[in-house]
Amino acid sequence: MFLGTTMIDPVILVHGGAGDIPEWRVPLKLHGVRKAARAGYNILSKVECSALDAVEAAVKIMEDDEAFNAGKGSVLTIKGTIEMDAIIMEGKNLNTGAVAGLSNVSNPVSVARLVMDSTPHIFLAGPGANAFAREKGVPYVPDDELITDFAREALDDFIHGKGEATSELGQESKHGTVGAVAIDRYGHLACATSTGGMTGKLPGRVGDTPLVGAGGYCDDAEGASSATGHGESIAKVCLCHHIIGLMQSGLDPKEATELALTNMKNRTGGTAGAITLSNKGQVGIHFNSKRMAWAYVRGGEVHSGINPDEDDIELL
Amino acid sequence: MFLGTTMIDPVILVHGGAGDIPEWRVPLKLHGVRKAARAGYNILSKVECSALDAVEAAVKIMEDDEAFNAGKGSVLTIKGTIEMDAIIMEGKNLNTGAVAGLSNVSNPVSVARLVMDSTPHIFLAGPGANAFAREKGVPYVPDDELITDFAREALDDFIHGKGEATSELGQESKHGTVGAVAIDRYGHLACATSTGGMTGKLPGRVGDTPLVGAGGYCDDAEGASSATGHGESIAKVCLCHHIIGLMQSGLDPKEATELALTNMKNRTGGTAGAITLSNKGQVGIHFNSKRMAWAYVRGGEVHSGINPDEDDIELL
Repeated sequence: MFLGTTMIDPVILVHGGAGDIPEWRVPLKLHGVRKAARAGYNILSKVECSALDAVEAAVKIMEDDEAFNAGKGSVLTIKGTIEMDAIIMEGKNLNTGAVAGLSNVSNPVSVARLVMDSTPHIFLAGPGANAFAREKGVPYVPDDELITDFAREALDDFIHGKGEATSELGQESKHGTVGAVAIDRYGHLACATSTGGMTGKLPGRVGDTPLVGAGGYCDDAEGASSATGHGESIAKVCLCHHIIGLMQSGLDPKEATELALTNMKNRTGGTAGAITLSNKGQVGIHFNSKRMAWAYVRGGEVHSGINPDEDDIELL
Repeated sequence: MFLGTTMIDPVILVHGGAGDIPEWRVPLKLHGVRKAARAGYNILSKVECSALDAVEAAVKIMEDDEAFNAGKGSVLTIKGTIEMDAIIMEGKNLNTGAVAGLSNVSNPVSVARLVMDSTPHIFLAGPGANAFAREKGVPYVPDDELITDFAREALDDFIHGKGEATSELGQESKHGTVGAVAIDRYGHLACATSTGGMTGKLPGRVGDTPLVGAGGYCDDAEGASSATGHGESIAKVCLCHHIIGLMQSGLDPKEATELALTNMKNRTGGTAGAITLSNKGQVGIHFNSKRMAWAYVRGGEVHSGINPDEDDIELL
């Protein structure tokens, strides 16, 4: 009887960051995005479920996986510190939670959710965000446990090759971000995005990730989108809000994602990628960086890829 | 000869915050917005000028005027501290600078401009933003010089009437923000917005003001917009980016501003106001709060108002 209210086949679509991902990191990224998409879908396949819970669960998997620049594995500021940003949003009511400059937590996306669920605000940054996490009882994790050798080496490379750094925006270490979009059987959409930012960033730098409409946006009336790539470029064009706006004017998620990214590159010179779902469960995946790891689950299939025009299919 | 390149009559349009402004503050606000608009226009009327310089100058006037919730006169966090947010953006190349959680400076908008002009980033928050201001030689101002009796009383009222505070979003002390949009004779657009935020906010709270597309947006291809009102509601709908998007689909600035604000109120319940200029110099002013102080200068006339449907005209 209850299943009679099912209107939509649930879908979860995740990304593990756009950039110039080196060959040896490819299998790690693909393994991670598939695992995250499966975990999110596991939630969506229950009768009691929400797209919001699914995107949070999927992003947490990638935050815990040091193959990604988010949570454990976050890249470092020019001072060698960790400052993580995250956002979560639900399409039903546009409720949003975001954090920036967070340290000493494993899962910034869950702190963003706490901002959404338990404050009158949508965004806390810096010491206020960290104090809020402590007050809410979020477990304290020494940053040393979050910092990987890969992140330390990336900062070393940045500092020693600094003259060229600004023209190497394609480097993975300047781009990684993780994100997820989902639609549940009730037709509700959600998105979440989480990142360590860019290697060598100034302390206090806020990228696109926690900005509503830039790093993520969703609205049940249209769709949901999550972005990754050169944060400043994504923010200047409000990439995800632009994608959702293009869908409102009639484009499908694939066309909207591609057009918004092309416009961004033309206006700013930056490269990025985005994943988009329509409120009918259609998928849009596009990137103008070299690579972007992604995976989605719909019906009994897990789709994934990391190079342009790839679409590997496994059974769930 | 040089004037032969003039293509557009320059216009500057400013606001001094939307909200339930008490009667005794009305003349102070009107005086302040007219003064700010005149100062911005003074820059636009020179041969060497830019819309960017004009919006910065106009916003600085209002930051220095304690009749407004920005710079001196900023409202206080629940801990009694000052945390100011600002953004500045130019429409030619979408360049943007923003700050959040700033203290000890008179003019946050100028720190935002420094972020734009002298870092690879577009947004610095918290201690990183404050350290950046110091490093750039921005004069240190004790917060005591920025905090007014009005701000202290507003926090007192918030704390003692706390049970009702969340339903009193119309109060001026929860809404104020200042902003400016301008077009120069070369057809370039700029916008800037600055605020102390909302009385009683949590430390670290970032409102709509410094978020690209929420508190401000501009693109020479369409227009420029600056918002004021309930920050969380403005951010959830990316109000200024939405307004510019509606202009791209054919609406004039007045229609676009009104439609986006109506949509925002329907989706979030919040009230706000916005000022918008098209790239032809057309003006759009709308608010669904009780009042919003605004003024603009075009040709020899200074227009201003604070109640719905008001349009007072003075000669320049």
